[in-house]
Amino acid sequence: MPPTTARLREVRDLISKNLHDSVLPFWMRHSPDREFGGYFNCLDRDGTIYDTKKHVWLQGRQVWMMSRLHNAYHAGQESSRYLDLARLGMDFMRKHVQRPDGRCYFSLTRDGKPVFIQRKPFSECFYVMALAEYARATGDQDCRRMAHDLFAKIVHWMHHPAELGRPVLEGTTPQIDLAVPMILLNLILEIRDPGSAQYEDIARECIARIHHHVRPELKLVLEHVRPDGSRIDSPEGRIVSPGHAIEAGWFLLSYARRTNDSECAQMALNMIEWSFDFGWDKEFGGLYAFMDCEGKSPVQLEWDMKLWWPHNEAMIAFLLAYQHTRDAKWWDNFETVLDWTWKRFPDPEFGEWYGYLNRRGEVTHRFKGGPYKGCFHVPRALFLCEGILDETIAAE
Amino acid sequence: MPPTTARLREVRDLISKNLHDSVLPFWMRHSPDREFGGYFNCLDRDGTIYDTKKHVWLQGRQVWMMSRLHNAYHAGQESSRYLDLARLGMDFMRKHVQRPDGRCYFSLTRDGKPVFIQRKPFSECFYVMALAEYARATGDQDCRRMAHDLFAKIVHWMHHPAELGRPVLEGTTPQIDLAVPMILLNLILEIRDPGSAQYEDIARECIARIHHHVRPELKLVLEHVRPDGSRIDSPEGRIVSPGHAIEAGWFLLSYARRTNDSECAQMALNMIEWSFDFGWDKEFGGLYAFMDCEGKSPVQLEWDMKLWWPHNEAMIAFLLAYQHTRDAKWWDNFETVLDWTWKRFPDPEFGEWYGYLNRRGEVTHRFKGGPYKGCFHVPRALFLCEGILDETIAAE
Repeated sequence: MPPTTARLREVRDLISKNLHDSVLPFWMRHSPDREFGGYFNCLDRDGTIYDTKKHVWLQGRQVWMMSRLHNAYHAGQESSRYLDLARLGMDFMRKHVQRPDGRCYFSLTRDGKPVFIQRKPFSECFYVMALAEYARATGDQDCRRMAHDLFAKIVHWMHHPAELGRPVLEGTTPQIDLAVPMILLNLILEIRDPGSAQYEDIARECIARIHHHVRPELKLVLEHVRPDGSRIDSPEGRIVSPGHAIEAGWFLLSYARRTNDSECAQMALNMIEWSFDFGWDKEFGGLYAFMDCEGKSPVQLEWDMKLWWPHNEAMIAFLLAYQHTRDAKWWDNFETVLDWTWKRFPDPEFGEWYGYLNRRGEVTHRFKGGPYKGCFHVPRALFLCEGILDETIAAE
Repeated sequence: MPPTTARLREVRDLISKNLHDSVLPFWMRHSPDREFGGYFNCLDRDGTIYDTKKHVWLQGRQVWMMSRLHNAYHAGQESSRYLDLARLGMDFMRKHVQRPDGRCYFSLTRDGKPVFIQRKPFSECFYVMALAEYARATGDQDCRRMAHDLFAKIVHWMHHPAELGRPVLEGTTPQIDLAVPMILLNLILEIRDPGSAQYEDIARECIARIHHHVRPELKLVLEHVRPDGSRIDSPEGRIVSPGHAIEAGWFLLSYARRTNDSECAQMALNMIEWSFDFGWDKEFGGLYAFMDCEGKSPVQLEWDMKLWWPHNEAMIAFLLAYQHTRDAKWWDNFETVLDWTWKRFPDPEFGEWYGYLNRRGEVTHRFKGGPYKGCFHVPRALFLCEGILDETIAAE
């Protein structure tokens, strides 16, 4: 059933209140490191710091979030606080995260010394997002230029992954990962100027790559396939990550809407629908973390856990799909996810959301921030949902 | 209460029957690869192969197990089958697992091409175990020599870990891991000739290193400390792995019993007792996979899962502690673990044990063999427990 305008307003207010009264205050109160700069991202349930290490994915993502909030709410009273916090993170990142060759570390000590570097380019991706949105917030042309330069390096690494240092051995199955083209497509939307068609050739290449992972014969999206798009007969080749595929779906739908590409939009809607149908736990509810496309037992120990971010991605994806199609089925799916999610993840006492539930939906991990969870998925989802709902209500 | 002789016999028969009628038949039927050699170790619940990759830890461990069974039961009718299977694995390993510099791969394709290499020396450790026990089974002097040569390299890597290729960055906290000295101590017991005091200096160094991890002020064993034994204030520095600490405890107790070192034996008993008291789930039973020594929320996603191998290690540790002390409290703990374990892990229908349960003790992963589970922890525990019980009954 399509929602009434009253229901749209009710959901919009619920989401907006959680964003502004619970989620953002948690991060703005507990994460800033006024002594060394940057953000503490390992925060216990009540905001206590349990590790002073700074994880670069989360530093970049929080700079992006703060800059984005500043850019969106520039008339509001909180706006200068967002900008101040964005600067705290960006100054720290510019001093500490990057090696001379462009590679970015994965984690740093509190005072910015490198702890670990991955052989994957994701720290770099989140630094690009941070630089681009921060440049938009401040007009800083250095940051803008750095974003585009680093983006070019990431595109190079997509074509030459061996340069990141993982040894390619004789028996290694050549594979491509959904993560790379989907995040590059998202980066293009982040760094290109509104209305511009910059990087269109790369966007098209990313979409072609994503296409290799979308399997109509299975009605599923596979995480790993061979570079020619053929399937890999191994547990890696059978992995489905429903939340990841749904996220890729809404990245693609956003791109398709901005470029009026209806074929692309349909592929995106298929990705979202198939992944939800397969990935939703029919017994206990919630989205599984990992599944095997043939129903075999996944080898990931956490496969049946319910993580916060797939539910964030599903909220965004269903609202965007409803806005795009006005088909009530997408709203119904949104309500299903919202209802399950809202009863389990948010912490009304100390703010923010828990990140990790077991299959039954019980909290297993007390902390609010960790090596992979920071000021990003929850506030991004709430912020984007707030915006989509505002537009949907305005169009009623 | 100390067990009656009847109870000792009953438990001995239960364990022996599971080993010989359920566990060993599973591996002997489903794992041999008669075409390319070696063993399939990724086996589904019913023994179906779900991945043809061969993981070197499990290849080495199965060669060790088969050789050990041959050496123990050389008069029995199964003995030549064990030796035949040991040879199948060893011939494959000698052809494929080692690089010219001595490093061993982590995983191989079915036909032996290298897939992945770790920056840790554990594939090498399990190859040493395999070589030494196989040499004992066959009298093969090449294998014996190779075991000692590779052992020397592993000792070298313990002192020069940077040579394994993990970059040491400026902010990396220097740390030592319990895993290294405990497995080296175990290797010494495996490769030294009975009654010999070979490698005694290295054994003493390993014990001194293990000592750094044993913290009487916490009554706990920490996985990671600084090289000088001081604590690391981070989630890594607070990790307790109860099953791992209990395993280290029985390795140390075995060493202490063979060298009549009562101080060492007491340290081992403390390690076992403290780790069990802290690591046993008082609500649902079973040993947690990981805990935080200060009661903070562990960051490992699987921290509250109940894995098979900690329960295997606890069975061995408690029986050995009971045999050593004749204190009934150890037998009581053994019964507690046996009762919880026996109701949940063994699969009477298809044989072997499940590997992964959730906190409540429900099976979450269907497969019997995977990248870290093979023909090792279950049969080793059952085999060693059978032997300890035989000795205990004989001494009644």
